[in-house]
Amino acid sequence: MKMSDYDVIIIGGGPGGYLAAERLGHAGKKVLLAEKESLGGTCLNVGCIPTKSLLNSAKLYVHAKEASQFGVDATGVSYDWDRVQGWKADVVKTLVGGVGAAEKRAGVEVVKAHANLVKPGIVEVDGAQKTADHIIIATGSEPVMPPIPGAKDNPAVVDSTGLLAVEKVPERLAVIGGGVIGVEFASLFAAFGSQVEVIEMLPEIVPFMDDDLAAQLRKGIKGVDFHLGCKVTAIEGGTVIYEDPQGTVQRAEADAVLMAVGRRPLVNGWGAEQSGLDFTSRGIKVNDIMQTNLPNVWAVGDVTGRSLLAHAAYRMADIVAAHILNPAGASSSGEIFRDNTVPWAVYSMPEAAGVGLTEAKAKEQGYAVVTATVPLLLSGRFIAENGLKAPGAVKLIADADSRVILGIHMLGPYAPETIWGAATVLESEFTVEDLRQVVFPHPTVSEGIREAAWAVRD
Amino acid sequence: MKMSDYDVIIIGGGPGGYLAAERLGHAGKKVLLAEKESLGGTCLNVGCIPTKSLLNSAKLYVHAKEASQFGVDATGVSYDWDRVQGWKADVVKTLVGGVGAAEKRAGVEVVKAHANLVKPGIVEVDGAQKTADHIIIATGSEPVMPPIPGAKDNPAVVDSTGLLAVEKVPERLAVIGGGVIGVEFASLFAAFGSQVEVIEMLPEIVPFMDDDLAAQLRKGIKGVDFHLGCKVTAIEGGTVIYEDPQGTVQRAEADAVLMAVGRRPLVNGWGAEQSGLDFTSRGIKVNDIMQTNLPNVWAVGDVTGRSLLAHAAYRMADIVAAHILNPAGASSSGEIFRDNTVPWAVYSMPEAAGVGLTEAKAKEQGYAVVTATVPLLLSGRFIAENGLKAPGAVKLIADADSRVILGIHMLGPYAPETIWGAATVLESEFTVEDLRQVVFPHPTVSEGIREAAWAVRD
Repeated sequence: MKMSDYDVIIIGGGPGGYLAAERLGHAGKKVLLAEKESLGGTCLNVGCIPTKSLLNSAKLYVHAKEASQFGVDATGVSYDWDRVQGWKADVVKTLVGGVGAAEKRAGVEVVKAHANLVKPGIVEVDGAQKTADHIIIATGSEPVMPPIPGAKDNPAVVDSTGLLAVEKVPERLAVIGGGVIGVEFASLFAAFGSQVEVIEMLPEIVPFMDDDLAAQLRKGIKGVDFHLGCKVTAIEGGTVIYEDPQGTVQRAEADAVLMAVGRRPLVNGWGAEQSGLDFTSRGIKVNDIMQTNLPNVWAVGDVTGRSLLAHAAYRMADIVAAHILNPAGASSSGEIFRDNTVPWAVYSMPEAAGVGLTEAKAKEQGYAVVTATVPLLLSGRFIAENGLKAPGAVKLIADADSRVILGIHMLGPYAPETIWGAATVLESEFTVEDLRQVVFPHPTVSEGIREAAWAVRD
Repeated sequence: MKMSDYDVIIIGGGPGGYLAAERLGHAGKKVLLAEKESLGGTCLNVGCIPTKSLLNSAKLYVHAKEASQFGVDATGVSYDWDRVQGWKADVVKTLVGGVGAAEKRAGVEVVKAHANLVKPGIVEVDGAQKTADHIIIATGSEPVMPPIPGAKDNPAVVDSTGLLAVEKVPERLAVIGGGVIGVEFASLFAAFGSQVEVIEMLPEIVPFMDDDLAAQLRKGIKGVDFHLGCKVTAIEGGTVIYEDPQGTVQRAEADAVLMAVGRRPLVNGWGAEQSGLDFTSRGIKVNDIMQTNLPNVWAVGDVTGRSLLAHAAYRMADIVAAHILNPAGASSSGEIFRDNTVPWAVYSMPEAAGVGLTEAKAKEQGYAVVTATVPLLLSGRFIAENGLKAPGAVKLIADADSRVILGIHMLGPYAPETIWGAATVLESEFTVEDLRQVVFPHPTVSEGIREAAWAVRD
């Protein structure tokens, strides 16, 4: 029996790829991880992590300016963009180093190389063919650049990577797209003093957030003008030309234009086609244990199109590792990808997070639902830390028949840190009544979730 | 059949009393809630809420001073104690008003009156006898004032209520007792510039926190000297005299001395003795559905001594209401008090929280345990927001045989808001492997809990 060069070859060193490599390496597998750029992928290098570093600085800046109502005064509050950016760069560098060290500890061989899937069992790494019992595709995604006249080769138009590297805070920023990326950047630059306009085609921002709360989020973000239901028709220099819902042509004048209409799975340039992989522009087709149509070829993360969130990629990586290491055990312990228990978070000011269905989606799926929406003003900690006018709410969606909870959405401080509990609630298939029995520490903002459970009519 | 004056009379308007009143009132019961002071009890008036308001101001003050490493500069950062206190008073007033309004909405009759339990079915309210089908005791607790020579009638010695009302920040503060209350006040006043010493009799602070993490918490609180294993022998003016573990007499010179050695159930002054209630100085004896030895007399909250946390009182109130409203339904749906799923939180700088057993307690109870402790430096958000030197860790304790999780303890930012998820994990009796399947949003500090689950050896 011919031995393969590796037990597993992984194409792509983002969250899905690097975590799968770690898990398999620690379990004693011989793993090759090929990444053509920097370990950590989009998330770590030009996505979640750098934006969170910048947003943290923005929050400190805003909090220092607004502490007076809580008895704390600062006479001169300013930011130094170069140092804000410098800290961000330090954080990214530290974490990329951390991923490298983790791979080393796991015994993973990491190569900075372009890898190409030839066929099941064979990957070309910088031109040399390598064999492996298993191959994991983790090539990620890329920003969508729609063919808007005037967008291409326009120095004023940037994607999120470009805006992260901007040398100074633009006086005026136009953002095309009101999804998570658009909203976080809008909130970030508005906090640092930009005049920001967001142009969104849909009737509401952040589509996976329940509409009621998304509207509150939109109204709660200070210093940003949102234009909903608007179609961008052209860009001229820094000016975005769009049609409003009445069909009137409008212009958003800006110094920089962020194109944030979405990301698409990166299915080109690494052999998807010639290898016979089943894929579309919406991603590689995978089943619930992340198997592709090809034997022992797996896919994880953004490239699957199942979810474009780093932590979904983590989960997929764990699932693949479990099934490679112990197929029978993984099946019996339920190692499958459950889309409905993947939370999301927006780190804007205010923050937001959620997991599970929105009310609209639940109805679309045929559920009769009961819902409750409560303001975070029910939380003593919320009031103490934010006053009486800050936006904040929790919405809970449950199946009217079984009372099983289908979704929990939250707008307000700490939402990204509190929402994993809601993911646990959905994993456990709690009913509204089960959730009412959970003891939340008092006083916390998380208690809003408990209040929502009690506010559902019996 | 003689009708009672009320379906339910509740003695005490703190979290346990007021929530039970709300639940029963909304369910159509005729409820009398007797509170001799202010609605909201200790927690709202002189406990959790005012301290959290002050701590929020302290955190804003510290963050404004320390934002420079994140590129944000604030000059002339100061606090105005009167305004800090003013905001706290506003918050308390708002929330007390909120409780009153909630009782009104629930149709509860609230009287500001001293109530006395005469016997089952009869309560004396300001001298007048009232009858009720059910009586709920929710009289709370009071600070313990140990008979230390020089403590009594010493104007420098205050309990937590006294320190909350202090007119200016003391230059030097001595705190007797390193439990939650002592630690929160120590951290608060140290942040505002006091020189603080804490004298604790036990070998470590915060006894319900796992020792490993409690030690890290202690080292992480800036500007506080902790003296462990020390016995206070006398107080002279503002000077605390104590014996260190070597038996040497030491002196802590201070301008104010906080007595924070604990609280005890308030079992005196409202008829416990003459009514024949079974109680000790450690609380009213109750079973898991909060029944006392007397028929239809229930007890909730601190007075039971089962837990001295407001949210435990909430849970007890829900349990009693459920059993009064529908005994069979409440029994079948598991409405019992589970001590092991009550989380706790400390809102110091850094914050801490936990739920379930410590490693030591688990071993005491006969478990063979597996544990894992991970630093929060594994979290990208933690690094981005705190740098590389900030304290932070998660410890997970599980049963080595069943792998069921027994305790999760966390030190670091957002811990109080993230820990309810851990309470859910314990409610669901998750194994380590179940927890590994939960998807945590990335990047969050809460991911430390996930990392801890993965760090448990297989």
